[in-house]
Amino acid sequence: MTAVIFAVMDASNFTLYELAGADREVRFSPHAWKVLMALAHKGLRAERVPLRFTDRDKIAFSGQALLPVLVHGHETVSDSWRIALYLEDRFPTQPSLFQGDVATAVTRFVNSWADTQLLPAVARIILMDVYHCLDTEDKTYFRASREKHFGMALEQVVADQPSRLADLRKALQPLRHMLKKQDFISGSVAGYADYCVFGMFMWARCCSAVELLEVDDVVTAWRGRLLNEFGGLAGSAPTRF
Amino acid sequence: MTAVIFAVMDASNFTLYELAGADREVRFSPHAWKVLMALAHKGLRAERVPLRFTDRDKIAFSGQALLPVLVHGHETVSDSWRIALYLEDRFPTQPSLFQGDVATAVTRFVNSWADTQLLPAVARIILMDVYHCLDTEDKTYFRASREKHFGMALEQVVADQPSRLADLRKALQPLRHMLKKQDFISGSVAGYADYCVFGMFMWARCCSAVELLEVDDVVTAWRGRLLNEFGGLAGSAPTRF
Repeated sequence: MTAVIFAVMDASNFTLYELAGADREVRFSPHAWKVLMALAHKGLRAERVPLRFTDRDKIAFSGQALLPVLVHGHETVSDSWRIALYLEDRFPTQPSLFQGDVATAVTRFVNSWADTQLLPAVARIILMDVYHCLDTEDKTYFRASREKHFGMALEQVVADQPSRLADLRKALQPLRHMLKKQDFISGSVAGYADYCVFGMFMWARCCSAVELLEVDDVVTAWRGRLLNEFGGLAGSAPTRF
Repeated sequence: MTAVIFAVMDASNFTLYELAGADREVRFSPHAWKVLMALAHKGLRAERVPLRFTDRDKIAFSGQALLPVLVHGHETVSDSWRIALYLEDRFPTQPSLFQGDVATAVTRFVNSWADTQLLPAVARIILMDVYHCLDTEDKTYFRASREKHFGMALEQVVADQPSRLADLRKALQPLRHMLKKQDFISGSVAGYADYCVFGMFMWARCCSAVELLEVDDVVTAWRGRLLNEFGGLAGSAPTRF
């Protein structure tokens, strides 16, 4: 799908609050990228509001502290998975993100795989690059919270990059195995199962100069197809490098 | 789903060739268990023919060398994934294994995850137990082929069981994460996405006395639900211990 042929709703109707770096154009959150791709899949556009990790007061209205947050008219939805379900429910005549209840359930497994296996594996490669994206106040927060989580200095988390790249490429084996048989996780057309994994690659692309994949990996070709979706929405997004 | 309420077809119409141990009642193949659960889901029964790894001549008619093989009337299908697609295609009015093309595609990812992540992790725990299940001729074949694959003696593959159990339990994190939100990978009712993962647990259950899971793991509860499906088809299957 290279062009959105469905009606694009009034952008002012949607507001997406998302993480941004010191350069406010660099929107690196893997979870925000899941939502951005889901919105595009539905032919929707949102006004995008850049926030910092430490801008918690600006999303206090959402009743929780995590980005991304989508506001649609009078409704506020947080958590990328719940946002995807919301879009599917509210825009049933636009292209489906899931194609039914069973596909939604199985896609939740893929989302869990991305969040529990890929996200930590990518973090162990790009965490210092994420840090260098941030402005001063966020840097302080980020270092403290991530060092507490990992139990070591950020510099140690990303030490031995060749081993960490090998770990990530090994973790991608299920995707690689599957991509030998079909173009997208969702089959012949990309869907939310693809976007929830692709978000991890956009996180790295926006923050880091490290190439996560080998050039001849089928995962690289899949990533390329998604970078080109929706008129190159992801491929043309501002990056730090 | 605890009872199969759909018409059960004439068993003589289906023959499933599957691996068995020295005790011919112990049918341990993870891939055969994917098929057995899929057949039960469709309300179908097959005559089950036990074979050894070294019985290749007995499935030469299938044009390839791997079990399981399903024969349905004049049709022969090998490879558990292709068998599941075949059953879905030929019995569309029986309960669906997938629920549509997108769910089928995303389920293929789950199957790839089971085969590339879980199968090797379980192997590193139970490989000697599988070996001890086999009769003399199969033992010789199994040791030679698996030692070549792993590049070490079987005894070394399964050394340090506590670490290998920890590795498996870590590999199960995506399933565990998802099961906090829904009962089955396929949602509220089990489907092929569940069976392709569950096969790995049946492999261990049939061959080995090692408990792969902690008692309070949500994965343990999920496995329990599947052991009870179809009148306890899997839970009552003969095991080595």
